[in-house]
Amino acid sequence: MALLDRLFGWLAVDQVFTDATTVQRMLDFEAALAWAEAQAEVIPSSAVEPIAAMCDVRLFDLGAISESAARSGNIAIPLIKELTAKVAASDKKAAGFVHWGATSQDVIDTATILQLRDALKLIETDLGKLCELLCDLAVRHRGTPIAGRTWMQHAVPIVLGLKFAGWADALGRHAIRVAHAREQVLVLQFGGAAGTLASLHTHGLQIARILAEELGLTLPPMPWHTHRDRFAEVATTLGLLTGTLGKIGRDLSLLSQTELSELMEPSGDGRGGSSTMPQKRNPVTAAVLLAAATRVPALVITILAATIQENERGLGGWHAEWETLPELVRLTAGALHHLVETIAGLEIFPDCMQRNLDTTCGLIFAEAATMALATFMGKSRAHQIVDACAHQALSEGQHLRDVLQRNEAVTAHLSPAEIVMLFDPCSYLGAAEEFINRVVSAYGINSQATVKD
Amino acid sequence: MALLDRLFGWLAVDQVFTDATTVQRMLDFEAALAWAEAQAEVIPSSAVEPIAAMCDVRLFDLGAISESAARSGNIAIPLIKELTAKVAASDKKAAGFVHWGATSQDVIDTATILQLRDALKLIETDLGKLCELLCDLAVRHRGTPIAGRTWMQHAVPIVLGLKFAGWADALGRHAIRVAHAREQVLVLQFGGAAGTLASLHTHGLQIARILAEELGLTLPPMPWHTHRDRFAEVATTLGLLTGTLGKIGRDLSLLSQTELSELMEPSGDGRGGSSTMPQKRNPVTAAVLLAAATRVPALVITILAATIQENERGLGGWHAEWETLPELVRLTAGALHHLVETIAGLEIFPDCMQRNLDTTCGLIFAEAATMALATFMGKSRAHQIVDACAHQALSEGQHLRDVLQRNEAVTAHLSPAEIVMLFDPCSYLGAAEEFINRVVSAYGINSQATVKD
Amino acid sequence: MALLDRLFGWLAVDQVFTDATTVQRMLDFEAALAWAEAQAEVIPSSAVEPIAAMCDVRLFDLGAISESAARSGNIAIPLIKELTAKVAASDKKAAGFVHWGATSQDVIDTATILQLRDALKLIETDLGKLCELLCDLAVRHRGTPIAGRTWMQHAVPIVLGLKFAGWADALGRHAIRVAHAREQVLVLQFGGAAGTLASLHTHGLQIARILAEELGLTLPPMPWHTHRDRFAEVATTLGLLTGTLGKIGRDLSLLSQTELSELMEPSGDGRGGSSTMPQKRNPVTAAVLLAAATRVPALVITILAATIQENERGLGGWHAEWETLPELVRLTAGALHHLVETIAGLEIFPDCMQRNLDTTCGLIFAEAATMALATFMGKSRAHQIVDACAHQALSEGQHLRDVLQRNEAVTAHLSPAEIVMLFDPCSYLGAAEEFINRVVSAYGINSQATVKD
Amino acid sequence: MALLDRLFGWLAVDQVFTDATTVQRMLDFEAALAWAEAQAEVIPSSAVEPIAAMCDVRLFDLGAISESAARSGNIAIPLIKELTAKVAASDKKAAGFVHWGATSQDVIDTATILQLRDALKLIETDLGKLCELLCDLAVRHRGTPIAGRTWMQHAVPIVLGLKFAGWADALGRHAIRVAHAREQVLVLQFGGAAGTLASLHTHGLQIARILAEELGLTLPPMPWHTHRDRFAEVATTLGLLTGTLGKIGRDLSLLSQTELSELMEPSGDGRGGSSTMPQKRNPVTAAVLLAAATRVPALVITILAATIQENERGLGGWHAEWETLPELVRLTAGALHHLVETIAGLEIFPDCMQRNLDTTCGLIFAEAATMALATFMGKSRAHQIVDACAHQALSEGQHLRDVLQRNEAVTAHLSPAEIVMLFDPCSYLGAAEEFINRVVSAYGINSQATVKD
Repeated sequence: MALLDRLFGWLAVDQVFTDATTVQRMLDFEAALAWAEAQAEVIPSSAVEPIAAMCDVRLFDLGAISESAARSGNIAIPLIKELTAKVAASDKKAAGFVHWGATSQDVIDTATILQLRDALKLIETDLGKLCELLCDLAVRHRGTPIAGRTWMQHAVPIVLGLKFAGWADALGRHAIRVAHAREQVLVLQFGGAAGTLASLHTHGLQIARILAEELGLTLPPMPWHTHRDRFAEVATTLGLLTGTLGKIGRDLSLLSQTELSELMEPSGDGRGGSSTMPQKRNPVTAAVLLAAATRVPALVITILAATIQENERGLGGWHAEWETLPELVRLTAGALHHLVETIAGLEIFPDCMQRNLDTTCGLIFAEAATMALATFMGKSRAHQIVDACAHQALSEGQHLRDVLQRNEAVTAHLSPAEIVMLFDPCSYLGAAEEFINRVVSAYGINSQATVKD
Repeated sequence: MALLDRLFGWLAVDQVFTDATTVQRMLDFEAALAWAEAQAEVIPSSAVEPIAAMCDVRLFDLGAISESAARSGNIAIPLIKELTAKVAASDKKAAGFVHWGATSQDVIDTATILQLRDALKLIETDLGKLCELLCDLAVRHRGTPIAGRTWMQHAVPIVLGLKFAGWADALGRHAIRVAHAREQVLVLQFGGAAGTLASLHTHGLQIARILAEELGLTLPPMPWHTHRDRFAEVATTLGLLTGTLGKIGRDLSLLSQTELSELMEPSGDGRGGSSTMPQKRNPVTAAVLLAAATRVPALVITILAATIQENERGLGGWHAEWETLPELVRLTAGALHHLVETIAGLEIFPDCMQRNLDTTCGLIFAEAATMALATFMGKSRAHQIVDACAHQALSEGQHLRDVLQRNEAVTAHLSPAEIVMLFDPCSYLGAAEEFINRVVSAYGINSQATVKD
Repeated sequence: MALLDRLFGWLAVDQVFTDATTVQRMLDFEAALAWAEAQAEVIPSSAVEPIAAMCDVRLFDLGAISESAARSGNIAIPLIKELTAKVAASDKKAAGFVHWGATSQDVIDTATILQLRDALKLIETDLGKLCELLCDLAVRHRGTPIAGRTWMQHAVPIVLGLKFAGWADALGRHAIRVAHAREQVLVLQFGGAAGTLASLHTHGLQIARILAEELGLTLPPMPWHTHRDRFAEVATTLGLLTGTLGKIGRDLSLLSQTELSELMEPSGDGRGGSSTMPQKRNPVTAAVLLAAATRVPALVITILAATIQENERGLGGWHAEWETLPELVRLTAGALHHLVETIAGLEIFPDCMQRNLDTTCGLIFAEAATMALATFMGKSRAHQIVDACAHQALSEGQHLRDVLQRNEAVTAHLSPAEIVMLFDPCSYLGAAEEFINRVVSAYGINSQATVKD
Repeated sequence: MALLDRLFGWLAVDQVFTDATTVQRMLDFEAALAWAEAQAEVIPSSAVEPIAAMCDVRLFDLGAISESAARSGNIAIPLIKELTAKVAASDKKAAGFVHWGATSQDVIDTATILQLRDALKLIETDLGKLCELLCDLAVRHRGTPIAGRTWMQHAVPIVLGLKFAGWADALGRHAIRVAHAREQVLVLQFGGAAGTLASLHTHGLQIARILAEELGLTLPPMPWHTHRDRFAEVATTLGLLTGTLGKIGRDLSLLSQTELSELMEPSGDGRGGSSTMPQKRNPVTAAVLLAAATRVPALVITILAATIQENERGLGGWHAEWETLPELVRLTAGALHHLVETIAGLEIFPDCMQRNLDTTCGLIFAEAATMALATFMGKSRAHQIVDACAHQALSEGQHLRDVLQRNEAVTAHLSPAEIVMLFDPCSYLGAAEEFINRVVSAYGINSQATVKD
């Protein structure tokens, strides 16, 4: 639905996949093919210019192509027929060399690859920006205590910066994966009717080489009409990325719950408002991220299921890709772009984090107490004692610190000051800062600079 | 892609889900709501007409709504804001009663339900037509022998009509399922901010009842904002249907392979042609059916995954449904409609079926021979003897019948004429015709009439 | 993994699908088949007893069958071979009539159906129990205020009972769907080599009728070897149910977060403990429900994808069902059973709910205030005023009630007492109680009895 | 089901994931942890031996652990409790240092990683073998003509070797992907309660480094408890691989259809036999490949969906991985191993390929004729003429060659000998051999050696 394009998508990436761009990329292939074949002296060089002149989507009636596609089974057949007619109107001889030696799938697949090149570039740029923003936040909040939560329950204190570092770390891995996928997918598809380039006789490979170079693509070992793992790797790679986007979306939604209020998406200009409740500030980006993470894996599975393509050209599988792959890219790039904007303006409430740490009257420090005692008595015994104190604190509505202070098994080993220290989140952060630094330096950010902050 | 709308979709169902129709159905809800609330004397009856007058999609700028939706997180908020402004321009007081007591999800969900009502009607009509066409073909071909194939290997002879009966039988079950799903989903969604209709005080239920009646929907026991099983049942029901469409598509593609040529999709007007091979006649409908059967299950899983919606309004899950459910309906209805047209013009080649039955020099009758002998010697021994004969026939390039005629273990029990009879496919059809009749009568087709043929 | 059987599964349903039970159900089919064929006088009645005597799984070496299945492609072939050998050892003639006229898929499918019958009964019983427990809780908590939460933000107050009613309402619909699926799937599969029962000549339908009756199954119009929608409907139905289980799991996990502490799974006997943190009480059932809701939809899509089965017997699709369908049933029944136990012992903390309602200094009542003012000035103006007051309350750290009391635009219409009343959650519950009653009576629970509580 | 283990799985990989191996890998982690902590002087070195001595799965009651896991929510908690008890029985002090500073997820995740290491090695070995077998076949059949088939219709002739080269080319890409995934996933998981290693104070990173080295794993920048993309990449990588296995399975099933009989899986020892039809030879491996390709994508989507894990430890998502990931590996490795064996013994029937090329009376050479004429008259005109001749050939039951020989528009440009040449498949293979050579050399096979054949 165009109605939801701005919510779920991103204009820059949507434009890569419009109907007009799709057809233009197909025409780009046809123009380049004519040029390559003239270079190889397989078609007359006089045919190149008349063909290239008509390779402009603005000359075509997309509605008519859509109608014909319902009968021919793809859009290449009517497009090439129409292109041939247009060329013939200006140069009858040149028209005979349109699409020479190619098959519908050559032009459709290669056009998709050209579109993926543009889209992946947009995604990689946003990934880079996001990693940088997050590394900066990680360093900035390397000392901001927040409750570590496991199973959606308080566990032990951590720092907010560690969350950001974790997000950045995962996104850094996705950048590597996108680079791998790009390398595999930015290759020419060109094999003719059944993958042998038979109609080009001995010139096939030579033309393929020139054509690939002209289009800025790699020449693969052989055509791959029914081996769809290249496209599928793009799909799975974006599926993996969307998983992380969903995880971030879930975290944002959890941390911005009314009772927690630790993070908040940027507001302004009616963002996240409700039609009836004036106090509402809905986490719209979290919803977009989670929606993408719900939808993209299903589109990935479509692409995976569609890889089972018969013999030299698939029937059904190939067709299943056409709308699915662009949609998958659109949702991923859209969600990613929303997130970049949200992280850039993220509102952070350390006071609320501190308040929430205090919610449980010190129980979040139970592990710290246990480990402190464990060095004296082993972990089992320490666990038992602290467990009992925790239950006492809960039932009597007291702070765990105070209960420990009064417990002889505890005070036999720990001084009052040591017990107080146990309840300082900053004294129980272990390797958190080292982890943050490792992530930041792994992703090439100059942590010194950001540390200055 | 609009470019592929005519290939994968069907105009009639696509029109149910255009942006304009979607917004109109939302406005229909708002108009009906105002009317219902005036009936209940909760808003002044003077507000109804001014509101209803503006509930016309042609008055709205869909582009602007799309822009705003990116900030508000759904299209209802900007739409209602705009509707309120338009009503205010003509009647300031009435404007205060737009969307009174409702929430965004009330209007979005109910609009979807009104669209599903239209779409399901189209699907049910096509299902009925298709069942009838297939029952007719089943009866017509109750005596047309064809190779039964299991594991994609010849098994025993059957009749073509049994295939059609099997397809019809499955489609008949889907018609029942669609009716069940329709019953569960054609209900009002109306609960206000958190499902209590709190802002309507004691009038909520009364208004809900009037509103449901006005819209021709059932009033459910309670609002169901985060219980999405009703929508999900529509999705799974269409997913089940598309499975059968895919099975039919696979069978069509297999039976129309060049070497088999038993069935062929109707041709004409460039249908199924190739851009380079003049002899090609590609099974376009089979591709459409298989593409739908590849894509729809993935959309079903999106809807299923999206059912996990939090508390009183989901975050992400709800959003994941908006584009997915219409796409799922579009693909199912499109594929079904293509199939109706294809079955109506299906080309059938009984001669090729007979030729293919003869491919294996009688081996397809091996089970018939085995069972004939088994009555005399038990199945194991009979299996052994026929197995040996089959291997002999294969290795010597002879017809199994001739090998059996020369085998004493066989001729001890079967006369030459009995052996010849074993190789008449029509003598080994068991209950095929009874099964066809049972299916035809189960789906209420007057089999007498069709049998006359 | 057997290691996780007790966490994710439920012993009662697991036992339905053990290897031994699977083979026993296949043997049950073979015994019933022999009996039916003797009734129809197609095999000698003297063969029945010797065959039936060997139809006992304890006589078979399952490891050997597993080995052979790797070559034959299914377990029926080695099982029947072994059964035949065993019968032959006691009665050579009877051995010749084992599996007479049937095909591997007849016995495999029918055995699965017999297992589904047992499993669906267990599920239906648990569904009934759960609905009853939830209806009881709904009535019991029809007056327990809790924050209604939308987009994971406070919206307006509701009552806890409405949540339970919503869960019960959805489960009630699932019970209807399970009944529909049961009706479609509890049918015989019996068609012989290619679905014609050819080797039974004119007796096929008669034997099928006797066999179906003997097994307590319905006789379908015709065999349905490659029409898998019956099994697939079981899968989608359980997929729908698991969606609701996941929704309940999510709600449980959200409401039992440390900061909310409104609900808690029953504890005791080490349930939900941590290996290191004595204060932890992990919501294990919520995890089981969410895990099931993550896994089952994917298994549903396998079953849907597998419905594309070729001609008269599928290749690959059929095989994909064998482990998937039992796993899907196991996960659904396991999660459901965990939930029944958890709901029966659910700990509920109305005090925490009240505390959380108070978290936002009255902002959760903003809609109530807006609607109260809207009757005087229209919704837009009221929304504006309350919005301003809400922001003032937030920025000044005051209670919204107090800000409203000092706002002249408000006090012009509402008395101090009326303003105070706006902040009583029980005065803003709309139709909540009516909705609860409608659900309770829809599912046949005697609400009078439970109301007395 | 153990019953189907040999059909769908492979013993070597199954053994990596048995319950016993799983627990042993967890115990391996605990032993290595104690050793690393003693190295870092965080626990006494006297504790190492008593702990290591009990880290033997044969000492544990797996049934009891399974029972407890249902309450604790994972198997680590009861396992560690039991391990601690066992150590205590021999050395009470050492028992206090079991699992020191670690969390359940550290041991569960790292054990899985150790298992994946073993499994990926098996898969990589089989991938290598398969590529080599296929490259060899590709070279061997670089001159074996076979019909190229697109949309399941004859297109133009190709050579069988090109099919094998295409399969090998795709598998070569998968080998690269598996290597990438291995690099990302073979890392330690070690973060303690919430990912900070807080209870190890300043020693965390040092211990992590020693532990990683001891286990032969890489040390990641930071713990990644809720960033599951590493596991998910293993899943998607195997999903991509299974897609290619499914494509090969489909091709095998299509080419071994009774009417085509071009390829056949190896037979012998009851392989592929039927329970009733002596002539049947079912393509069991094709079924296994297609079943895997149907099931694995769904398991991939489970893993992708499960990546949305909350804060510092997931609830439900993590749990959804435990049975899914091993199952996914098992199915992939099982199918791959079946394929290696099948390709090693594949039966190839060039005569049948030639017979099938002749099926259409020369129509498969229509493109060759078109392109031959097109050099004289442009493609459109040539297409028209050959199209007309093709229809004439079909309707008159003649060979296309003969029709062309009699068509003046053709004979004006092509001599009788040239026309005859058009119908030699070997004269219309284009770059097929070059493509084969490119693939073979890309995957490092010494093509000279294999060419000698």
